Amino acid sequence: MEQQPQTQRWKCTVAYDGTDFEGWQSQPSGNTIQDLLEARFSTLLKTSITVQGSGRTDAGVHARGQVFHTDLDWDHPPDALIRALNTGLPHSIRILSAQKTEPSHEFHARFSATRKRYTYHISLGDPSPFEARYVHALHGSHFSLKDAQEAAKHLIGTHDFTPFAARREGGVPIPDGVRTLYRLDFEQNTPQQLTLTAEGNGFLYKMVRSLAGSLIQVGLGRLNAGDILSILNGKERTHAVPTAPAQGLFLDCVYYSTESK
Amino acid sequence: MEQQPQTQRWKCTVAYDGTDFEGWQSQPSGNTIQDLLEARFSTLLKTSITVQGSGRTDAGVHARGQVFHTDLDWDHPPDALIRALNTGLPHSIRILSAQKTEPSHEFHARFSATRKRYTYHISLGDPSPFEARYVHALHGSHFSLKDAQEAAKHLIGTHDFTPFAARREGGVPIPDGVRTLYRLDFEQNTPQQLTLTAEGNGFLYKMVRSLAGSLIQVGLGRLNAGDILSILNGKERTHAVPTAPAQGLFLDCVYYSTESK
Repeated sequence: MEQQPQTQRWKCTVAYDGTDFEGWQSQPSGNTIQDLLEARFSTLLKTSITVQGSGRTDAGVHARGQVFHTDLDWDHPPDALIRALNTGLPHSIRILSAQKTEPSHEFHARFSATRKRYTYHISLGDPSPFEARYVHALHGSHFSLKDAQEAAKHLIGTHDFTPFAARREGGVPIPDGVRTLYRLDFEQNTPQQLTLTAEGNGFLYKMVRSLAGSLIQVGLGRLNAGDILSILNGKERTHAVPTAPAQGLFLDCVYYSTESK
Repeated sequence: MEQQPQTQRWKCTVAYDGTDFEGWQSQPSGNTIQDLLEARFSTLLKTSITVQGSGRTDAGVHARGQVFHTDLDWDHPPDALIRALNTGLPHSIRILSAQKTEPSHEFHARFSATRKRYTYHISLGDPSPFEARYVHALHGSHFSLKDAQEAAKHLIGTHDFTPFAARREGGVPIPDGVRTLYRLDFEQNTPQQLTLTAEGNGFLYKMVRSLAGSLIQVGLGRLNAGDILSILNGKERTHAVPTAPAQGLFLDCVYYSTESK
């Protein structure tokens, strides 16, 4: 193919309800966020377009602010691009923003990201039909917020988080599991609803769901803060580390160095 | 069948996300709220159980507080019934309450109802993926809340609402279209979200969606308050009466005479 010097790199933000998709990453089924976005861009721009996400999200995981970049030849205003894209996307995927990046082609949605924020939503009771797709339900089990909160404090900071990561199918061991968590804490939104917020400079595969799963076990009284420390210091994943269900997880925000955090 | 004098009549409240169902009323497909409830009760009670709703809701319409009655032989506490039912129902259908009625078999979910409240949810912008199932989106069209509010006032009170009713498929003319609307008003929940609340002693087929559709036309400047009065006084449905989409409609509450309103 010939060079296309007229394309510019765009940074886009997208929200999605992950319930009915097989995650972010392109799959043979075509039923992923990346596949649907690429199909929509390609139809609109009448050429084959690929998009590069800030990272993958698993099947069933939602996003309020996933970021991707793509190289486009689009001379109309950004708002027209957003409208045109959304018109042809399912209601469960919405482009929230789109902007050209400068200097062109230096911005990279994955490699330029400096920080991400995830939230994990827990319902202590039986969630309503309107929130059931977006929470992990504990169905009235006793939950100690204080214990879970206390255990979370041990995980904040720079650690090798390998024990809280899963290997991808057929995957190799994680080469470097050291990451920094700036924030890991629970908020009680209503008597029945908790949100765990995790903010860090990067996350290993299934790390947020493993952190959430372990801290939920602490809240339920099945692990304690000492167990969490032992898991972290053990350097290897054990059966004590459960992965909390995908449906409670939202990728809220991806930060880049030129933005305020 | 022999008499079963040991059964008692139960009044139950149920919430549902109607998106994936063909409405309340039993259908050959079996994919309705009534069908799923009857299947669940029948499995649990090990006998064929029918349920009687306060009224039908159309395909795609949601409920926060639909009421039905059913005759059961259940000697355990109500909470155990609710838990057992919900365990076997999809997350999009949740039994919220269940209580025995006294004197037994006098309560009737449909005929004892004295008042119902519906809400219709409108998004002025492009709804997020997490609210798209539950609103009718106007995608940035200019909407005059004041004009819609003013027109709604003409409809409050006792009128023949036949012009705002649809005939059921193959249905006969509506024998008596006189109903009383106690409340019909808009609230602005956020800059982008409106809720129309309709409360009355009864509603004709698709009446709330016809009222909502007409008042939305007023808000959009395509009809005015005088047109709404003309439609009401015309005694017949005209092409000017659009039916707003099902997904914005919630059956919020059914009232009975022994309850406070």
